[in-house]
Amino acid sequence: MYKLYYSPGSAAMAAQAMINEIGAHLGSTLAEFILVDDEKNEQKSPEYMKLNPHGRVPTLIYDDGKVMYESAAICQFLTERHPEARLAPAVGHADRGLYLQWMAYLTNTPQEASMHWWHAENYIDGKAEQAKMKAKAEERLAKMWTFLDGVIATKGPYLCGANFYACDYFLVMLIRWTRSMPRPGHTYPRLNGLVKTVMARPAYAKMLKDQGIIQPV
Amino acid sequence: MYKLYYSPGSAAMAAQAMINEIGAHLGSTLAEFILVDDEKNEQKSPEYMKLNPHGRVPTLIYDDGKVMYESAAICQFLTERHPEARLAPAVGHADRGLYLQWMAYLTNTPQEASMHWWHAENYIDGKAEQAKMKAKAEERLAKMWTFLDGVIATKGPYLCGANFYACDYFLVMLIRWTRSMPRPGHTYPRLNGLVKTVMARPAYAKMLKDQGIIQPV
Repeated sequence: MYKLYYSPGSAAMAAQAMINEIGAHLGSTLAEFILVDDEKNEQKSPEYMKLNPHGRVPTLIYDDGKVMYESAAICQFLTERHPEARLAPAVGHADRGLYLQWMAYLTNTPQEASMHWWHAENYIDGKAEQAKMKAKAEERLAKMWTFLDGVIATKGPYLCGANFYACDYFLVMLIRWTRSMPRPGHTYPRLNGLVKTVMARPAYAKMLKDQGIIQPV
Repeated sequence: MYKLYYSPGSAAMAAQAMINEIGAHLGSTLAEFILVDDEKNEQKSPEYMKLNPHGRVPTLIYDDGKVMYESAAICQFLTERHPEARLAPAVGHADRGLYLQWMAYLTNTPQEASMHWWHAENYIDGKAEQAKMKAKAEERLAKMWTFLDGVIATKGPYLCGANFYACDYFLVMLIRWTRSMPRPGHTYPRLNGLVKTVMARPAYAKMLKDQGIIQPV
């Protein structure tokens, strides 16, 4: 039994959808989802910071009290513990290198660019400077979406080609984070196709419902 | 046989040291290291961009022509292909969650903050704004080093505790990137200890020599 600490629409989305999918596969409830209310700034509360000193979500509790954080790492960890759900290519599978590449790229490049946009104050002082940085983040993300749209155009329908993996959940989560930008990820044709395919997965739909997310893209 | 494209002192350092270590373990030469001369901007050449459309190093060629990039992903891939070198805890090992957590954190947080410092022009327009962003990156990195120094103080000597893993190579590489900042990573006492321990590994020392790196920290 896992415990996953989440805030609605946060970096916990991918892991929560994955837990739903693994649970459906196993026919059992696999986790308790614990709300960290970011509107009350609960992610910075002393209790939560004991679990996750960075005050970010998600945090995963496993094996009766072991703690880990970092969204991409939790996704990777879940794929390894539950290989029967096939949410990642096995070690030795022809897709393995590409899958690892996309997980690393998604967390250190588009996720990071989205953080610039949502939390510019963490990266530069001054309102005018923050606005300039946000504008640049929008430009950078537009280039990333163009690039990833091209990847899927060449090799799709999923990031690694024919097979759906955790990196696709992760990408659709990141795409949602750009919904208020001038060129949101879901406006690119192949990314739009991927979003629709992923939203049709019951595990993702359940996560959206459980997190109370009304605007799914 | 691998091919690893590298530039001296770049994000290829960790993977190159790992390939040396695995090769020593197997008693064979495991890779050809191919210089991408960043002083000549070769990472943006049309030939290289065909391999890595982001124009960054490292890139790994494996299995007679398959291509992958992203430093953290290549490190992870190498640990999986060569479990006998014990550069990562096996799936199911008590350190596994923590190891994955640190790999994700290192690539999306301190590596990203270092990129702000080295390539501020990618993130914001204007010389004055870039200088402000660099100053903030120095502050952020100082906080990260304080945090990681504390992790090792509590649980060291390595990031995951008693055992050396790829994340330690990765961290020492990132520490070197802050050598010209007001508070470089190696000036924190436990990080300094880790740097010295890692530099004493023949595989890391060979990588420094092969890359022609005179200032190792």
